[in-house]
Amino acid sequence: MVDPRFFNRAGPFRAAELAQLAGAEIAAGGDGDLEIRDVAPLDSASSGDLSFLDNRKYTDAFAHSAAAACVVEPRFADLAPAGMVLLLSSVPYKAYALAAAALYPVTPPTPGVAASAVVDPTADIGDGCRIGPGAVIGPGAVLGARCDIGANVVIRQAVQVGADTAIGANASLSHCDIGARTLIHPGVRIGQRGFGFAIDPAGHIKVPQLGRVIVGDDVEIGANSTVDRGAGPDTVIGDGTMIDNLVQIGHNVRIGKGCIIIAQVGIGGSTVLEDYVVVAAQVGIAGHLRIGTGAQIAAKSGLMRDVAPGARIAGTPAVPARQFFRQVAMVENLVKKKGR
Amino acid sequence: MVDPRFFNRAGPFRAAELAQLAGAEIAAGGDGDLEIRDVAPLDSASSGDLSFLDNRKYTDAFAHSAAAACVVEPRFADLAPAGMVLLLSSVPYKAYALAAAALYPVTPPTPGVAASAVVDPTADIGDGCRIGPGAVIGPGAVLGARCDIGANVVIRQAVQVGADTAIGANASLSHCDIGARTLIHPGVRIGQRGFGFAIDPAGHIKVPQLGRVIVGDDVEIGANSTVDRGAGPDTVIGDGTMIDNLVQIGHNVRIGKGCIIIAQVGIGGSTVLEDYVVVAAQVGIAGHLRIGTGAQIAAKSGLMRDVAPGARIAGTPAVPARQFFRQVAMVENLVKKKGR
Amino acid sequence: MVDPRFFNRAGPFRAAELAQLAGAEIAAGGDGDLEIRDVAPLDSASSGDLSFLDNRKYTDAFAHSAAAACVVEPRFADLAPAGMVLLLSSVPYKAYALAAAALYPVTPPTPGVAASAVVDPTADIGDGCRIGPGAVIGPGAVLGARCDIGANVVIRQAVQVGADTAIGANASLSHCDIGARTLIHPGVRIGQRGFGFAIDPAGHIKVPQLGRVIVGDDVEIGANSTVDRGAGPDTVIGDGTMIDNLVQIGHNVRIGKGCIIIAQVGIGGSTVLEDYVVVAAQVGIAGHLRIGTGAQIAAKSGLMRDVAPGARIAGTPAVPARQFFRQVAMVENLVKKKGR
Repeated sequence: MVDPRFFNRAGPFRAAELAQLAGAEIAAGGDGDLEIRDVAPLDSASSGDLSFLDNRKYTDAFAHSAAAACVVEPRFADLAPAGMVLLLSSVPYKAYALAAAALYPVTPPTPGVAASAVVDPTADIGDGCRIGPGAVIGPGAVLGARCDIGANVVIRQAVQVGADTAIGANASLSHCDIGARTLIHPGVRIGQRGFGFAIDPAGHIKVPQLGRVIVGDDVEIGANSTVDRGAGPDTVIGDGTMIDNLVQIGHNVRIGKGCIIIAQVGIGGSTVLEDYVVVAAQVGIAGHLRIGTGAQIAAKSGLMRDVAPGARIAGTPAVPARQFFRQVAMVENLVKKKGR
Repeated sequence: MVDPRFFNRAGPFRAAELAQLAGAEIAAGGDGDLEIRDVAPLDSASSGDLSFLDNRKYTDAFAHSAAAACVVEPRFADLAPAGMVLLLSSVPYKAYALAAAALYPVTPPTPGVAASAVVDPTADIGDGCRIGPGAVIGPGAVLGARCDIGANVVIRQAVQVGADTAIGANASLSHCDIGARTLIHPGVRIGQRGFGFAIDPAGHIKVPQLGRVIVGDDVEIGANSTVDRGAGPDTVIGDGTMIDNLVQIGHNVRIGKGCIIIAQVGIGGSTVLEDYVVVAAQVGIAGHLRIGTGAQIAAKSGLMRDVAPGARIAGTPAVPARQFFRQVAMVENLVKKKGR
Repeated sequence: MVDPRFFNRAGPFRAAELAQLAGAEIAAGGDGDLEIRDVAPLDSASSGDLSFLDNRKYTDAFAHSAAAACVVEPRFADLAPAGMVLLLSSVPYKAYALAAAALYPVTPPTPGVAASAVVDPTADIGDGCRIGPGAVIGPGAVLGARCDIGANVVIRQAVQVGADTAIGANASLSHCDIGARTLIHPGVRIGQRGFGFAIDPAGHIKVPQLGRVIVGDDVEIGANSTVDRGAGPDTVIGDGTMIDNLVQIGHNVRIGKGCIIIAQVGIGGSTVLEDYVVVAAQVGIAGHLRIGTGAQIAAKSGLMRDVAPGARIAGTPAVPARQFFRQVAMVENLVKKKGR
């Protein structure tokens, strides 16, 4: 059961309503008028609950689930327990996401500026913004409508934030522009000076970092991730890119649209990710590389060379994923032979 | 010498008192009435100081130490310099920890709510709590007795924190319950939404993250670590588990009791660690895996498969540690042969 | 063009003035009186702009650049477009850094204590300090002259900070002394207790962490990095060492002078880095090791043994870099042969 201390539920909805919102169809014989009040995982769902199946591993849990209704691909429909209302979709995870979002809608923040927030008089705060306690908004900063600025956030001079963007608690932004409908998680650091030095035995010389960070619309940046500002060019994160926790983005990096970057990845200075690149957890990408559109990088890889569009890459130094797994198998076999 | 600016010393104690507190025994002929005023490493200790030996590497330092007393295993007793009082223990590091804790006791916080803290009137603050400057406690939050809430901490709506728990400066908690006697270090992020999307070329769809984070008693979570809330199930950290700095715990992860997770580890969504698992630094564990009780994972490993209870695992992709070191040796030898 | 919302430009300067500040010489025939108003990358520079070439990759951009002036090594001078004023230097990146710093000088903070800052009356605040909104300065803390303490920073009891040091937003310092002219980035955590336990099946026993963190002069510590205090000895970071984002420094680590430590590196407890060590991104170094002066560790390496001064090291477990790349080539070749 979803904890009502933390989440406000809407609804109930009829199954047919949720199916429509989810782009799914009620399977033949299913009761479209069934009342759906909540969502739950297959193994803990009960009457009134909508669940989903999107992974072969869980067909057994599906077959024995007490969920009232379930989003599922047509090919698994025959496995459903009797009486379960099926919402058929070729993209069940997406359909479930849309249905769950109807039951747990994201609501705009309650407008208001906390008494302990410190908002510079020259800052321009849009209608409907919430500014949490202890938040600090610098001179000339501009917030679009309905921004949700968490407690103890620091937004420095002249930063611009688009409408409907949320900034999590204790995050800090400087030297940057952030798009609309973007979600910056707690503790994120954006816009600090990049790691630029002229190495010198008498003391490394700091190279002034004179660029910005430009974050697009509909972006998400995970907790405690860090994005340095450019050295001269800007650091850029494209629309719809999703970045997980504890990710490091170096100065001058340019990330395209719709990329997915999983936790603890590090991207070196001046590297370019084209659109829809997927970078799995703990990958390191050296500076000054180009990663082509739609490339997929396996977890923990270390990249020292450019990657072609659509390529699948693994290992350190990274090679095509197939080759990597052949290398792994070969080394394993050699050891086995030797062991005999 | 321990810096009195930062640490308050208790005592002095007689050697026999410390031995008793430490579960150790004074070696034959040792002066149990000797006054111990402080602790110090073997190489800098002097009169009045208690030191310890728990590593063969340092037997030489032990033999030449000027420490007044030393916790040591019986087998090393013969190496002691003349006149040193020995506290004999089969677990000298533990015995030292207990003795040092007597000299430097953890004291309850000085109760009080800082003037600049923002505590919602519906929050329930236990007796003896300290709430630091700029801390923000949301509606319906519940703190047990003697909690120590650092400066600029953000605790959001309805979060529950057990008695004698300390939350370090600038940490943020939401959608979570925290146990008793737990230590959350500065900058930790708990309860933000997990990294859940239905991938879609028209724009990735956020999957509502409707679970919580449940942290047990006597847990420690290191500085700037991140723990995402569950997607539906909860993210769970069991009693007595110790987590180091900059660790990432994904949504729905379940960690058992007494685990030790060293710095910069990442654990993917829905993975289960049973009890007493040890995960060394910079390990990555993929999602949806099960790591058996007492398993030990070598530093920097990358896990893509389940791990049996008690197994020792290393490498990327990870294999039994023995096999990993055989692989390493084999590759080294092949290169040497080729070099001839 | 550098965004005037975020950066205050000085100047203009004559090319000859900048050359002198940069330790460069105007190439024969160049107009030393040319007015330089700004800096820009080679490909976007135009009249009035100074640029630089420090990488063979960009000689083409140099040959076609519209920059008014450019810092460059003498050997590339012949490639310059007609009319470009050349500032000749054998260390062009350093020379550029010095010229850019003249155009964009680091200015001392505007003195003052924000109304919402909480400064303990026993703290000693030097002349010319800026204390940002929501910053908390504990009892007995000492700040040198012209410190710039960001918004919502937490500096705990008795911490000392040298003159002209800046602490970024939301950082927290305890149990430490910080040198002069040091830059601590937003979200850095310094001085929390180290990860020290006596492992015990009945519940791990915390070992009191009774040391400090000592940070030298002219150090930089990147955003969201963590530095634990010593267990007994101190954790030490030497003068002029540069540390990038999300780096973990364990208790008792001692880092020498002028080291460079790139993002997401982790250094285990009690390890020693001598002077001028370079550690590339995502490296892990086990505890209790010694890394010799001037050693260079390749990105993503995992170190389990000491490293000799000047050595170049790569891989996990790390070996001399040459040997690592021979191993990589050998494994690649074996797979190719097998593929035939």
